[in-house]
Amino acid sequence: MSHGDVDPEVVMTSPHRINGDAGSRSRWQTFWKLQSWQSSMLLLVGVAVCVLVPGCSATDTDIALDAKATLNHRIQSLDLLVFVFLLALTVLTIWLFKHHRVSWLHETGLAVIYGLIVGAIIRYAGTSATLVHIQVEPQGVPTYSDKLPPDTLWFRYPVNQTNGTKAPDVITYAYVFRGQVHDVDENEIDLKATFDPEVFFNIILPPIIFYAGYSLKKKYFFRNLGAILTFAIVGTTLSAFLIGGFMYGCVKLMPKYLSSSFTFLDSLYFGALISPTDPLTILAIFNDLRVDVNLYALVLGESVLNDAVAIVLSGAIQNYGEHYSSTGDFETTAFLRSLSDFFSIFFLSLMIGAAMGCLTALMTKFTRVRDFPLLESALFVLMSYSTFLLAEATELTGVVAVLFCGICQAHYTYNNLSEDSRQRTKQIFELLNFLAENFIFSYIGVSMFTFPKHHFDAGFIITAFICAAIGRAVNVYPLSWLLNIKRKPKISTNFQHMLFFAGLRGAMSFALAIRNTVSDERQTMLTATSLIVIFTVVIQGGAANFLLNWLKIPVGVDDETEQLNNYQVHSVYNSMDNSHPQTSDGYLQDVEGGGVNRNKMRLSGGTDTNLDTPVDGPNGSLGGASGGRRRNSHEKAILARIWGNFDTKYMKPLLTHSRPTLLETLPVCCNPIARLLTTTQQLTQDGSEFRRVDSDSDICIDNDTGNGLSQDGTGAAPGVGRRNSLSRSVHLNEANHLANELSLVTNNFM
Amino acid sequence: MSHGDVDPEVVMTSPHRINGDAGSRSRWQTFWKLQSWQSSMLLLVGVAVCVLVPGCSATDTDIALDAKATLNHRIQSLDLLVFVFLLALTVLTIWLFKHHRVSWLHETGLAVIYGLIVGAIIRYAGTSATLVHIQVEPQGVPTYSDKLPPDTLWFRYPVNQTNGTKAPDVITYAYVFRGQVHDVDENEIDLKATFDPEVFFNIILPPIIFYAGYSLKKKYFFRNLGAILTFAIVGTTLSAFLIGGFMYGCVKLMPKYLSSSFTFLDSLYFGALISPTDPLTILAIFNDLRVDVNLYALVLGESVLNDAVAIVLSGAIQNYGEHYSSTGDFETTAFLRSLSDFFSIFFLSLMIGAAMGCLTALMTKFTRVRDFPLLESALFVLMSYSTFLLAEATELTGVVAVLFCGICQAHYTYNNLSEDSRQRTKQIFELLNFLAENFIFSYIGVSMFTFPKHHFDAGFIITAFICAAIGRAVNVYPLSWLLNIKRKPKISTNFQHMLFFAGLRGAMSFALAIRNTVSDERQTMLTATSLIVIFTVVIQGGAANFLLNWLKIPVGVDDETEQLNNYQVHSVYNSMDNSHPQTSDGYLQDVEGGGVNRNKMRLSGGTDTNLDTPVDGPNGSLGGASGGRRRNSHEKAILARIWGNFDTKYMKPLLTHSRPTLLETLPVCCNPIARLLTTTQQLTQDGSEFRRVDSDSDICIDNDTGNGLSQDGTGAAPGVGRRNSLSRSVHLNEANHLANELSLVTNNFM
Repeated sequence: MSHGDVDPEVVMTSPHRINGDAGSRSRWQTFWKLQSWQSSMLLLVGVAVCVLVPGCSATDTDIALDAKATLNHRIQSLDLLVFVFLLALTVLTIWLFKHHRVSWLHETGLAVIYGLIVGAIIRYAGTSATLVHIQVEPQGVPTYSDKLPPDTLWFRYPVNQTNGTKAPDVITYAYVFRGQVHDVDENEIDLKATFDPEVFFNIILPPIIFYAGYSLKKKYFFRNLGAILTFAIVGTTLSAFLIGGFMYGCVKLMPKYLSSSFTFLDSLYFGALISPTDPLTILAIFNDLRVDVNLYALVLGESVLNDAVAIVLSGAIQNYGEHYSSTGDFETTAFLRSLSDFFSIFFLSLMIGAAMGCLTALMTKFTRVRDFPLLESALFVLMSYSTFLLAEATELTGVVAVLFCGICQAHYTYNNLSEDSRQRTKQIFELLNFLAENFIFSYIGVSMFTFPKHHFDAGFIITAFICAAIGRAVNVYPLSWLLNIKRKPKISTNFQHMLFFAGLRGAMSFALAIRNTVSDERQTMLTATSLIVIFTVVIQGGAANFLLNWLKIPVGVDDETEQLNNYQVHSVYNSMDNSHPQTSDGYLQDVEGGGVNRNKMRLSGGTDTNLDTPVDGPNGSLGGASGGRRRNSHEKAILARIWGNFDTKYMKPLLTHSRPTLLETLPVCCNPIARLLTTTQQLTQDGSEFRRVDSDSDICIDNDTGNGLSQDGTGAAPGVGRRNSLSRSVHLNEANHLANELSLVTNNFM
Repeated sequence: MSHGDVDPEVVMTSPHRINGDAGSRSRWQTFWKLQSWQSSMLLLVGVAVCVLVPGCSATDTDIALDAKATLNHRIQSLDLLVFVFLLALTVLTIWLFKHHRVSWLHETGLAVIYGLIVGAIIRYAGTSATLVHIQVEPQGVPTYSDKLPPDTLWFRYPVNQTNGTKAPDVITYAYVFRGQVHDVDENEIDLKATFDPEVFFNIILPPIIFYAGYSLKKKYFFRNLGAILTFAIVGTTLSAFLIGGFMYGCVKLMPKYLSSSFTFLDSLYFGALISPTDPLTILAIFNDLRVDVNLYALVLGESVLNDAVAIVLSGAIQNYGEHYSSTGDFETTAFLRSLSDFFSIFFLSLMIGAAMGCLTALMTKFTRVRDFPLLESALFVLMSYSTFLLAEATELTGVVAVLFCGICQAHYTYNNLSEDSRQRTKQIFELLNFLAENFIFSYIGVSMFTFPKHHFDAGFIITAFICAAIGRAVNVYPLSWLLNIKRKPKISTNFQHMLFFAGLRGAMSFALAIRNTVSDERQTMLTATSLIVIFTVVIQGGAANFLLNWLKIPVGVDDETEQLNNYQVHSVYNSMDNSHPQTSDGYLQDVEGGGVNRNKMRLSGGTDTNLDTPVDGPNGSLGGASGGRRRNSHEKAILARIWGNFDTKYMKPLLTHSRPTLLETLPVCCNPIARLLTTTQQLTQDGSEFRRVDSDSDICIDNDTGNGLSQDGTGAAPGVGRRNSLSRSVHLNEANHLANELSLVTNNFM
């Protein structure tokens, strides 16, 4: 996903140039070879295409400008090259660590450390790169008095021609608006290997967030929807305000200058940006943990969603400061406006994301584009990317839209895709996610040394570390306590400690911190955030495995096959238990569907998590484990149940090829519309052999989800049981279809 | 592959703003809703988050600037969104066309047509977007006399504060250097949905060219290496100079103003940019044609390589004009310099590409990173991208480097990759190629209406069309005649007509034309090139199928299985025929390897071409056909033979796990080094079962290549026979290894 804002902005020019003496392209090259850090890299590369230029043709200025443009291009290429090499090195080292089973350093930690090393080299190996600037004023009209500064300045530049021939004496150059100069005294801009912060929001974060949504274990996610939403929104907001308040209090107690200019809004913004935890690292750690599958989904879902909440929250806080409040203190109307901003932007973004996901599902359902997997994958990628652009174009938050688009794509579109496209889209986004994730962590390391706007303040940093820990504690312990009231398998104290410890900060915090570095306060925040990210990722991420042992949390994944067997026995038992009216149907289904197709699903779904688990055991066994430990708790996930019901009855039949069809679930009066929205494939289920087997597996995915709710009991047995019996007794004829189907499938396997 | 230069440059501001009256963000929004074409899109989208802003906080300028930045971001997002939607629409229509077997419009033609329609809508639906500019002069120092214009201008801007509070009275804004203003009188810059031309060279072309190299049928490519290189370099250069000369003559005869300013270099540049043909379209057309497999490889290889030649050639011509020649007329020294430029840049780029490809091969050979396919794929992508950056950073041509990197990756690295990575890398680059290809063709259509620097000149355009046809004819007919002297199966006249007709112009021509649009001549060239591309892609591409029928060129792919059977019989026959000394070995190999592993290769290699052939028949049957039609011609592809020998004896053993090992091919004195460079896997060939089967397939790929040369006879039977017997008699002990291997494999299949 590439966007229009990439502009590395690394412009390196010579401070000597101000002398104004004539020079040629070769002089530039000489300068460049002697002074720039990049030059040492290039010399190392050893390929130099030196073209000696005689100083006799065209104007010298043209040649010098041309050389300068070439140089800029080379330096930009070189900067990117440094990062690409850094990533390649990280990849090789990750392999080495995995190969030798080194567990004390996580891969993101590795990227950060390499970044720090390279950043230090860049910082201290080269010289400073400065931009030459001059003060200008409007020509003729000294009092330019428009509301806005002009978009371009035209600068008439007198050419000193060494051999005046045909070129005009004055050349006009265009200069485009860049931004405000905040520190007029700071006469050199020191930009080394830094990227425009907007790059993170437009290029790096979208694939990460989309992949998080796309690979979310949808079954467990939707079952815990209510809890996840509450914890993500309430928890993150709570944490943000608590950190903000505490920070504000602490900073005000500091004797330094910071206390005067540091507003409550600033500290609130800091609270919002430091609250979200990094989903990928938690995923990696929890994959090693044999935690309760619902807890896993809860924490994973929360850490994915709190990224979305944090970005909207920080936007609302910024808006409050810039537009609504004139004083920076608390104002009720301004606060309410920001609150409505927060909710409207969040839910409109959610809606756009979901709508685009559903649109893709409709496209893949009602066309036979699946016959051409390449076209199908292209459509999938284009639609997902356009979600981001659409949200950005309508002043919503693209990252949030992309997250919910990813969730919908996984929940609906994925079922319509051809096998080839499923694999391809998973693999592509997995790779993009991996590269983006490692790039951002490398960059965090590099930018500690190269980003010019760091501001170290020991007091603030220490306070920030304490506050971040407190914020995490506020998230984990009270919410675990609340959870333990409702949950049957309590979250043990050791688990809570582990959860607290797993609260690493990552990409989102850094991206939010580096977005705005105008003032000293913001720069201090960036420095603190960078250090917190580096510390949590390297130290906490590395120590996680030791802590797992120390807290005696079981890390056994060796009993996978046993659990799998348990699971299948139980699922047959459950389906018989829950679907009395159609015992034969349910039985057939689970023996055939569970035995054959569920295993197929297991294989095809295996790419979900092989990012972090080369041996794709843990998740499978987690599902098995929870299926094995049947619980009869009557947890009331009302929201999840309502949604699940609606989803199975209307959304899935509309958006996928699943049964029951809309003809069966909609009232009779809507039959014409329902017929229109039901494919013949859905109705007849007899196409070519390929389609038959495949659509059967679609059904099983659906049934798996439906039965899954009742299977491991957590998802409220009576309600779901009612739903199941309701929906099934309504469409008894479905059983015939299924029976036909399954006998056909059985014949195929005979 | 994303690069730092993306800058859509679409800045839309109001011409009213010069009036200087105060306004707020909402005024901006109103303006934007009323006047911009993008607004109609947004209204269509129907989501409007209107936030009413009270005009009482901060400074009005800050708010207006903020709103403007937001607006720019929205417009940029919207511009990209238009293209993404356009691509999605194209994908859906391509599916529809494929579904209904519409053959009169090729998919790239479809992209162009949609682009034209959307371009026309953008052009005529919206109003003009202008940039506000003012003339400035240095403050205080009226005579700025440096050699180069400064990098930034600092503009002190007086703030008209409505309620003067804390902000300073003067704000300094930074303006960065953009470029020369060529037409000072042209007081509005009309930029609508246009991208920086460098985007094409840094983002769009690299994946297309890399994929062309990566998916090149390497066996046939390397066999025809000498011929392909000669035709690509000599043919393209010839065509460029002929077109250039003819154009120059024609333009000089024109009565218009163009004749005075149009130099010979300009016309030569035009010749260079219009000479390369589009590989993808030829591939698509030739896949439907049952052409001789060597001819197929020749034309495909040439059309891939002539892109590389054209970009270097045009660069050399530009250098000649800018640096070497003062007059623009012919100068011997300048010409020789350009010539050495051309060759040195081409071959250094080639070397960098090949070196990086080989480095990746070494990395994947000597590490066990293949155990983690995600890491392996990431490494592959990173190394390939760094090739481009490395070439660009060293002032070479990244596109050329990437092409040869792709060829080496396919030839060596691909053999070392795990099955997962093979599929993943193929699929990723296939998708990237598809998206990039369609994007560029859409953009060609859109830019016909939106790009501000078109210059229509009917005479020039007609001449250009005629010249392009002549250039193609010069490429096809004389070279076919030359080929027919040496070839046993003559290229029939109908085939030659078809080849001539298949000379579509594509992405590279357009990218080269839009790169430089400074002068009127260059703008005229761009217009002519765009029209030629559109015409050839839409009309010629669409008519190709009709012409195939009309020329009675057989388009039968239905006899695939028959050919396949023939092929296997013949290949066994051939291998017995050519490898007398080790009949048992050769026999075993071809029965087992050919029967089992060759089919496996067929499957794994199937992704090569499923971009254009959903049913991967044609290529397979082509190979079969040429294997079937055994020819005993003594064509002397000396270069190919020398290279093939070197490749099999040194390069493949060094870079892949293939046999013979370097221990066997290098002189005895080099044994320590050879041992170091030979993996235990290569030596013992007994690891886990997976590895054994896999390395066996590696061997068979190798053997397939070796035997392939002698199998279908075209590749010079005596020479290759000598090589085979030579290399085999040298390492007789290899036969034992193979026999062991194959018995193991056979056991596995029992």
